[in-house]
Amino acid sequence: MRDFVYQMPTKVIFGREAELQAGEQAALCGKRALVIYGSSRVKESGLLERVEASLAAAGLSYIELSGVQSNPLMGLAREGIELCRRERADLLLAVGGGSVIDTAKTIAMGVPYTGDVWDFFMGRAQVAAALPLGVVLTVPATASETNRITVMTNEDGGLKRSAGSPLLYPVFSLLNPELSFTLPPYQTAVTSIDIMAHTFERYFDHGIESDLLDGIKEALLKAVMKNAPLALTEPENYEARSELMWAASVSHNEMTGIGGDYGSHKLGHELSAGYGLAHGHSLAIAMVAWSKYVMDEDVGRFARFARQVWDVDPAGKTERQTAEEGIARLDAFCRSLGVPTTMHESGIPSDGIEAMADKMLYNSPGWVCGNFRKLYKEDIMAIYELAK
Amino acid sequence: MRDFVYQMPTKVIFGREAELQAGEQAALCGKRALVIYGSSRVKESGLLERVEASLAAAGLSYIELSGVQSNPLMGLAREGIELCRRERADLLLAVGGGSVIDTAKTIAMGVPYTGDVWDFFMGRAQVAAALPLGVVLTVPATASETNRITVMTNEDGGLKRSAGSPLLYPVFSLLNPELSFTLPPYQTAVTSIDIMAHTFERYFDHGIESDLLDGIKEALLKAVMKNAPLALTEPENYEARSELMWAASVSHNEMTGIGGDYGSHKLGHELSAGYGLAHGHSLAIAMVAWSKYVMDEDVGRFARFARQVWDVDPAGKTERQTAEEGIARLDAFCRSLGVPTTMHESGIPSDGIEAMADKMLYNSPGWVCGNFRKLYKEDIMAIYELAK
Repeated sequence: MRDFVYQMPTKVIFGREAELQAGEQAALCGKRALVIYGSSRVKESGLLERVEASLAAAGLSYIELSGVQSNPLMGLAREGIELCRRERADLLLAVGGGSVIDTAKTIAMGVPYTGDVWDFFMGRAQVAAALPLGVVLTVPATASETNRITVMTNEDGGLKRSAGSPLLYPVFSLLNPELSFTLPPYQTAVTSIDIMAHTFERYFDHGIESDLLDGIKEALLKAVMKNAPLALTEPENYEARSELMWAASVSHNEMTGIGGDYGSHKLGHELSAGYGLAHGHSLAIAMVAWSKYVMDEDVGRFARFARQVWDVDPAGKTERQTAEEGIARLDAFCRSLGVPTTMHESGIPSDGIEAMADKMLYNSPGWVCGNFRKLYKEDIMAIYELAK
Repeated sequence: MRDFVYQMPTKVIFGREAELQAGEQAALCGKRALVIYGSSRVKESGLLERVEASLAAAGLSYIELSGVQSNPLMGLAREGIELCRRERADLLLAVGGGSVIDTAKTIAMGVPYTGDVWDFFMGRAQVAAALPLGVVLTVPATASETNRITVMTNEDGGLKRSAGSPLLYPVFSLLNPELSFTLPPYQTAVTSIDIMAHTFERYFDHGIESDLLDGIKEALLKAVMKNAPLALTEPENYEARSELMWAASVSHNEMTGIGGDYGSHKLGHELSAGYGLAHGHSLAIAMVAWSKYVMDEDVGRFARFARQVWDVDPAGKTERQTAEEGIARLDAFCRSLGVPTTMHESGIPSDGIEAMADKMLYNSPGWVCGNFRKLYKEDIMAIYELAK
C-alpha cells in the first residue's frame, strides 16, 4: 500500500432534516454568515428560509450572495470576497452543490489574503488562513463538502484550475438526501457519473493495487451503478438518493484510496471550460475515450475493472477483449442515463481540439498529470480525436 | 440509509517510518509528553528510542509510563493520571496497540476531571475536557487509533466497560505497518479476528442494509480473510501487514457504517474480563455461538453474509443451509488461524456462565445491547452454552 495521509476533519450530519442543524453548527464557528447559493431553486423550495431561520434562531446574522453557476466563475467569488470584507462576515455557509461550495471555499481563502485569490489556483501562493465554512448540500457530486479542493474557472483566459488546502475542509456539512429529490433527470445523471469518475480516477494508477481499497472502490462504483437508474425512475426514492449522496462524499477523499490518474478530469475540464458542458457529462466523454487510449498501459487492470465492476464474464475472451467489454459497458451505462459520450452528440465541434490541448499544457511541464499514463500534446489530441 | 454523524478528525500518517513524525506532530499540541507503552518489546526493538529522539528533536520533554497489559486495568490508568498531574504533562503519546491507547485515553480524560475517572465508564459523567493524544501504532486491531472509544477493566469487580467522547479522538496517529512485523503469530491471528469482528457487528443490525456500506463491509472482511493468513506465513510481508493495519482503522469508525449489534463484543468482554482471554480470541468464540443462536432472526442476512463474504454457493441449498454454511466457514477460518472457537478448547470452564450473564446485565435494563436481537439473561446463558 502506498504511503498516505488521511485527514477529513469535516463533521458530517447525514439524514432527514439535517439542514435544520445549520444554526447550531454555525454558532460554533462564527457570528455573521455569508450565505451563498446558486439558482432560485433553493429559495423557491423554502430551503433557504429554513436554513436562515435556523441561523437566526442560533443568534447569527447573515447576508446573501446568489447566482453561482455550474463551472463557477472567479468574478462572483471576487464579489463575495469584497462583500465579506465590507460586511465583516466571519463565516461562510454554502447552500447548494459543488459549484456553490467551491465558490465559498474560494471566498474563504480570499478574504484574509492580500494578493489576488487566483494565485492559489496557479500555484503562486499557499493558503495560510481561511474563514470557516459550513455546507448544506443539495447536489451530491463533487465531494467538495468533505474535501479540501476547489475548482474554479477564470473568465480571463477561460482557464479551469483547482486549489487545495487543509484549511478548506468544511467545518460541517449537512447532508439531507431529500434535498436532492428535485434534481432534474439530466443533473441526476451527470452527477452520478461525476461520483463514479472520482473513484474511476483512483482505480487507475500504478502501484496502488490493494485488496481493501480496490474492494471499497468496486463497492462504491456498483452502488452508484445500481442507484443512479433508480433515482432517475423514482426521484423521491430516499434510499437511492441516500446511496448517491454518501457515495459522493466517500468517492473523493482518502476513504476510497490515495493516488489516482486524473487525466480524465483534466480532459473533461477543457470541455467544460471551453464549451460549458456539465462537469459529469464531460467526464463521461473523457473517461470512455481515455480508457480506450490508455488501456494497453495495463490491460490486466482494465480486465479486473471489467470483471469486478461491470460483471463481464471473462470466459472465452482474451484479457484485452474482457477489458474492451468493460469500457463498452461503461460507455453504455452513461448512455443509459441519457448522457452521450462523444463530443459530436454533445454539441461540441472538433475544430478546437488543438486549442484545448494547448490550454491543458499551459503551466505544465510538457505533459499533463496522469499517473497511469502521462499525456503529452499528441496523446491529448489523439484522445479528443477518439472522443469526437 | 439510517441517519448518522460522521466525524473522524484524527490525522493519520500511514507508511514506512511514520513514527519519525512523532515529534513534529506532537509539537503542534503540547510541550511535555507522557509516553505510554506496554511490554519491553517497544524498548528492545529501538522503537521507543526513535520516538523519544523525535520528541526531543522537536523540543518536547517527556516522561514514561510502562506496563500496560492486554485487557488494560484501571489501576495503571489512575497511576498515569497522578503522574501527569505531578509532572505537568500536557500531552499523551501512546506507543503500542489498543490497550496502550485505551489507557492513554483514560488518562487523557482523567487528568482534568475532579471525580473518579471510572464515572465515565459507568455513565455517571460526560467528558468535558481531555489532554491531546497522539499514537504510534504497533498492533492493528481495535481501531482505537481512529475512534473515540476506550475499553477498560476495573480490578474492583472485574467489570469491563467502555467510555467514549469526541474529545478522545487522537489528534494524530502514525501507522507504520513494519512495526507489526514482529507480532507473534497468535497475536496476528487474534487481532485479525478483532478487525473482522468490528465489521461483523456492523453487518448485523435491522434496517441498516445499504448497497454502499454493505459492499464496503464485505470488501473489508474479504481483505482481512486474504491477508491474515499471509501475514502468518510471511510476517514481514509489507503489503499484507498494510492491508491489516488500514483495515483495522477503517473497521471501527463510521466509514464501514453506522449502527451494529455488539452482542458478540459484550459476550466476549466477559470471557476476557473473567478469564484473561485475548480480546480477539474471545470474539471468535462469541461470534460463532452468537451467530448460531440469533441466525433465525434474519436468515436472509446471514445467507447474504455467507454468499458475499464466504463465497458460499447457494445452489441446491435452502437459505438456512446457506446461512449455516457461512457460519461454519467463519468458524473454520478462525480455527485455520490457530484460534479455537469454544470455551473448553480455550481453557475456560463452563461453571461461570451464569456469573458472566449476571455481570453483563449489571447496570443494564434487563437486556444487553443487541440491535439485531436483544439478549436477555436466558439468551446469554444459552449462547455461552453453545460456546462451551
